[in-house]
Amino acid sequence: MSLAPAALHEHPTASDRAVVDFHVAAPLDPAQAVFARRGECTVELDLRHAGRRDVVLRYEILGDPALPAVFVAGGISAHRHAAASATFPQEGWWPQQTGIGRVLDPRHYCVIGFDWLGADGAIDAPIDPADQADAVAAVLDQLGIARVEAFIGCSYGAMVGLQFAARHAARLGQLVAISGVHRAHPYASAWRALQRRAVALGALQCDETHGLALARQLAILSYRTPEEFAERFDAAHVSDGRVRVGAEDYLDHCGAKYVERTSPTAYLRLSESIDLQQVDPGLIRLPVTVVAIVEDRLVPVSDAYDLVERLRGETRLRVLRSLYGHDAFLKEESAVAAILREVLDDAAFAGCTEVAA
Amino acid sequence: MSLAPAALHEHPTASDRAVVDFHVAAPLDPAQAVFARRGECTVELDLRHAGRRDVVLRYEILGDPALPAVFVAGGISAHRHAAASATFPQEGWWPQQTGIGRVLDPRHYCVIGFDWLGADGAIDAPIDPADQADAVAAVLDQLGIARVEAFIGCSYGAMVGLQFAARHAARLGQLVAISGVHRAHPYASAWRALQRRAVALGALQCDETHGLALARQLAILSYRTPEEFAERFDAAHVSDGRVRVGAEDYLDHCGAKYVERTSPTAYLRLSESIDLQQVDPGLIRLPVTVVAIVEDRLVPVSDAYDLVERLRGETRLRVLRSLYGHDAFLKEESAVAAILREVLDDAAFAGCTEVAA
Repeated sequence: MSLAPAALHEHPTASDRAVVDFHVAAPLDPAQAVFARRGECTVELDLRHAGRRDVVLRYEILGDPALPAVFVAGGISAHRHAAASATFPQEGWWPQQTGIGRVLDPRHYCVIGFDWLGADGAIDAPIDPADQADAVAAVLDQLGIARVEAFIGCSYGAMVGLQFAARHAARLGQLVAISGVHRAHPYASAWRALQRRAVALGALQCDETHGLALARQLAILSYRTPEEFAERFDAAHVSDGRVRVGAEDYLDHCGAKYVERTSPTAYLRLSESIDLQQVDPGLIRLPVTVVAIVEDRLVPVSDAYDLVERLRGETRLRVLRSLYGHDAFLKEESAVAAILREVLDDAAFAGCTEVAA
Repeated sequence: MSLAPAALHEHPTASDRAVVDFHVAAPLDPAQAVFARRGECTVELDLRHAGRRDVVLRYEILGDPALPAVFVAGGISAHRHAAASATFPQEGWWPQQTGIGRVLDPRHYCVIGFDWLGADGAIDAPIDPADQADAVAAVLDQLGIARVEAFIGCSYGAMVGLQFAARHAARLGQLVAISGVHRAHPYASAWRALQRRAVALGALQCDETHGLALARQLAILSYRTPEEFAERFDAAHVSDGRVRVGAEDYLDHCGAKYVERTSPTAYLRLSESIDLQQVDPGLIRLPVTVVAIVEDRLVPVSDAYDLVERLRGETRLRVLRSLYGHDAFLKEESAVAAILREVLDDAAFAGCTEVAA
């Protein structure tokens, strides 16, 4: 184990406002007998645009809290449940990298995740990525964890990771920022603004699901690449007097699946939140690994270069090529695993962490 | 003049079904004293999906019909009026290349354009690009023009040009296909399908303009590039409790301008028509100049390479780089002019035309 043990890993101090579910995984399979716990707490946060208010934070821990802590965060559709365990057997959002035998193995790390502030639809006001970073800190307070060895963020999670590194540096060893940078690109912002208009258009007819489905379908295009579509989908054809293009069945499926599990308010506010991303990389002096994808249509690789040039601590850049563009963190299992393994295992880099932090 | 004169350039034989406006430009400025005429005719066409039916075709001629004929066609929003004249002084869709002193100078060429089949919203059925090529031939019949020296098509116009080259080879000297190829790319088709869904979503609430505006805004993103947006637009800000991104004023303007002049039915059917593009390049044996833009997000340069490899006549490829992506044909005035000048003036290439045609 090249990482220093987590500085603090007490059992949670349930405040009078917290509701904590506590489970140790039933050892059906000895290899699966890892610690897993979910909890939620209400904390008062000073939100940049929404003002001071009570918010409910929902987290999940996978792995013994005595192990080095790693915080993982994905895109705006991700949540606290990164991977299945015996306790919580449903599939997580990042099974490729999290779980027994994966890079983020709960036998070696205590993996922490949370539901984004606003994901429950309870905040109908602008949410800044800096608010999310403060919410992460509040979750760690709740858990009695003073410091995490690594924050691994993908997409929006990478943006929030940068905010966390800038605002709560003393609590962080190192950051891995995959497909997310210090700003929202104006073109990607425009794309998202139009997705939000689709939701608004749907809302005008009192049927939010149509608008939300269309928004999701538009988002899918921004997450993927023309090269993938060219491989997967056929030419258009005429059906019932309308032209139907090759990708429409797939897009229908994506839209329908998304509206089942997403509140339009949560979607709108988290989508907006991406566009509010602004952090000065010059404030970040701890080790950061920036992972960029050449084919990413939302986060141009040039913005990743800009980020790397402006960070002030030890910085690594890893550039991948992927047919899956922005979604590479979900699809390029072995390439992403190799980067995470290198980052987590590299004693020299971890050593620098301590110096820099 | 390196081009052979147009084979036939009689004055139009107005059929009993045709309504022809005939004007010779008032010579306010002697340089402007060029021939300009508009007309419309009703012809019976055998449409691939819409069946045999009477359609109204509207055309405009700029330049003396005794001069070599050049047919110009733009994107689905373009129309018969390529450039202003004393007769028709409103701005055209391609003033950069058409008009006195431009490459397509009406003192040297007879420039012909038409309104797309379906642009009047009268055809609420799938329209194939091959139908458009047959409509072009019908317009030429109407004008008594047996053959055009060049067909210059941009975007959808390039697709139709390829269809015309495949279906009416004997009537064409050479083709210039700018930012349009032999197929619709599956990713671009998906993007358009979602634009059409925006129109459908708007129609559900009986307000087609909102949906059409959103569709146009989505289309604008596909026409332009992240690099341009990064130069033009600032970061998002919060306004009245909502996040407003830098490009939204511009997108509002684009949407509003478009709905003023566009019928939703016309938009839907012409958008669909792009997705029906399918032509076998192996059927085309006349000279073709393919112009591709590296940054084009709708027509990947790889599809232009594929087209060039499969064409059977003398073929030229010109690859441009442009901040404006798919819209380069409207914005890269000098680069496009240089290509058109070369194509139109090159006697050797024009000579080949005759051999190949």
